[in-house]
Amino acid sequence: MLTPPGDAHYMAAALALSERGRGQTGANPNVGCIIVKNGVIIGRGWTQPGGRPHAEEMALAQAGTAARGADIYVTMEPCAHESTRGPTCSNAIIDAKPKRVIVATLDADERTRRRGIDRLGDAGIPVSVGIREPEARRAMAGFLCRVENGRPFVTLKLAMSLDGCIAMADGSSQWITGDRARAHSHLERARSDAILVGAGTARVDRPGLDVRLDGLADRSPQPVVLGTDKDMPEHWQQLDEPAAIAGLADINWLLVEGGAKTATSFLAAGLVDRLLLYRAPILIGGGLPSIGDIGLNKLAEAHGEWQRTDRRDLGQDMLEIYDRAA
Amino acid sequence: MLTPPGDAHYMAAALALSERGRGQTGANPNVGCIIVKNGVIIGRGWTQPGGRPHAEEMALAQAGTAARGADIYVTMEPCAHESTRGPTCSNAIIDAKPKRVIVATLDADERTRRRGIDRLGDAGIPVSVGIREPEARRAMAGFLCRVENGRPFVTLKLAMSLDGCIAMADGSSQWITGDRARAHSHLERARSDAILVGAGTARVDRPGLDVRLDGLADRSPQPVVLGTDKDMPEHWQQLDEPAAIAGLADINWLLVEGGAKTATSFLAAGLVDRLLLYRAPILIGGGLPSIGDIGLNKLAEAHGEWQRTDRRDLGQDMLEIYDRAA
Repeated sequence: MLTPPGDAHYMAAALALSERGRGQTGANPNVGCIIVKNGVIIGRGWTQPGGRPHAEEMALAQAGTAARGADIYVTMEPCAHESTRGPTCSNAIIDAKPKRVIVATLDADERTRRRGIDRLGDAGIPVSVGIREPEARRAMAGFLCRVENGRPFVTLKLAMSLDGCIAMADGSSQWITGDRARAHSHLERARSDAILVGAGTARVDRPGLDVRLDGLADRSPQPVVLGTDKDMPEHWQQLDEPAAIAGLADINWLLVEGGAKTATSFLAAGLVDRLLLYRAPILIGGGLPSIGDIGLNKLAEAHGEWQRTDRRDLGQDMLEIYDRAA
Repeated sequence: MLTPPGDAHYMAAALALSERGRGQTGANPNVGCIIVKNGVIIGRGWTQPGGRPHAEEMALAQAGTAARGADIYVTMEPCAHESTRGPTCSNAIIDAKPKRVIVATLDADERTRRRGIDRLGDAGIPVSVGIREPEARRAMAGFLCRVENGRPFVTLKLAMSLDGCIAMADGSSQWITGDRARAHSHLERARSDAILVGAGTARVDRPGLDVRLDGLADRSPQPVVLGTDKDMPEHWQQLDEPAAIAGLADINWLLVEGGAKTATSFLAAGLVDRLLLYRAPILIGGGLPSIGDIGLNKLAEAHGEWQRTDRRDLGQDMLEIYDRAA
């Protein structure tokens, strides 16, 4: 006999929904929400483009009056602050009279942290906190990084050969990886609020910094250039140094695409949270290295900084994802 | 109900035995042999150190008179030539009166090819050829390469960071990979007849070119140095260029360990059959690249040369194995 789904199961489903909003929610966290009653999912929601409606609002609208007596799974504590842009989720949940609310992680913002769950508790609704919290922190890392570290979550993408080159010595790099790896990298763009390249790459690749996947072209991220860019289009943003990403408004997820100089400057500044390594089964030999001097003094210091969190095949190529070790 | 094992199953067992002899069989192929009667394995053999006894001789000795009416699985066609060093396997098999002989691949040597199976057939013993032949060619690639290409099968080992560096800019490389990856690389030494390093690496690492694994120290390969080595110990061999590996006597499996210059020269000469990439989850940045110019003219030419044949985790590190694409 199958074991009935438990809290961890439903929270995993809410986390999967949260991924839908990644790169689209402005200053808001990309939250996911599932409402379950008698083993049936009666509402599903995720933070909508621009940040509203919130995940809970969407899920409650689907569930309607059936939410009464249901279990509500939400990946982050419901908001408790008043806003002109929509309802306060903790109030809306109280009005819906659920049996229980299950929260993966608290709001990171100290000004609002615990207020949502306290309000639910004061209204007599049992609240559980901490189910799948590590996964939730990963799924909403953009928002959490911005609140906790005052800057976007930075993903560095590198497409390289087995010997770690991102181009031949003459700079040619079309193509190292194949169609499927490149399609995946466009999906990653669609999951980012902004995409950053160095001025050199901008000169070469400017027209290409959008999402070229059918149905996702409208999810193209905000372009940002690092360095001096004389021909910068009006809607681009320009930064003088990696640390200036702190000033990017409403950007949770920043994808750094290169080139090597830009990658190096972000790594040297300690401003990379995730590595996306697309690796082709080729040797280049004497090509352009993926990164330059990042300030490493001793080999021992290089260890323990990164841990692999995912790995998959993309056609002939491989994708490896490394997150900064906790 | 379980399906009873078939020919492919038993041949896989014979191939697993053949691996035991790898790097130990001198000029002989590292053959494996299984004798099966009524679903019971009554004999197992593999080519012994130095090349004798042959796998079939060992398996037949175990089976004794029970070999009569049994199925004999052997990874390579039994030998048909006379030798002062031991019995001729095809004759020994005929004497044993098996029901059937199953062969994965024929001898590569045109002077003896088909003679073994023809002799069995002439004696009225049914012979099947070709079961798991690709795996057999891989398992005995050292011998086959030497016969077909006139040189050992060359495996190039590289231990590198995620960004493809084999050392920091100052040359320090202790340690990039961890204990388990280093232990595996010593196992790979034990599976090699000879190990080759450049003169520079020999100066630094000379005392370390043995197998440092309990119980396997006596399997340390023949050391070979590429280039001018003033302090070369008497038992080492010296080569002036990669192509000179053709002159290494009785060496089926050659492991090239580095450094980068040596790796580059073998790749540039087209004399690498397999890549062993040990990769640590670290970034070095601006370190020594794993390989230099290997003569690649266009990026497109780099594709299709290598295919991944294995991948595994070794502690925090990864091992990837690439074979030259067929």
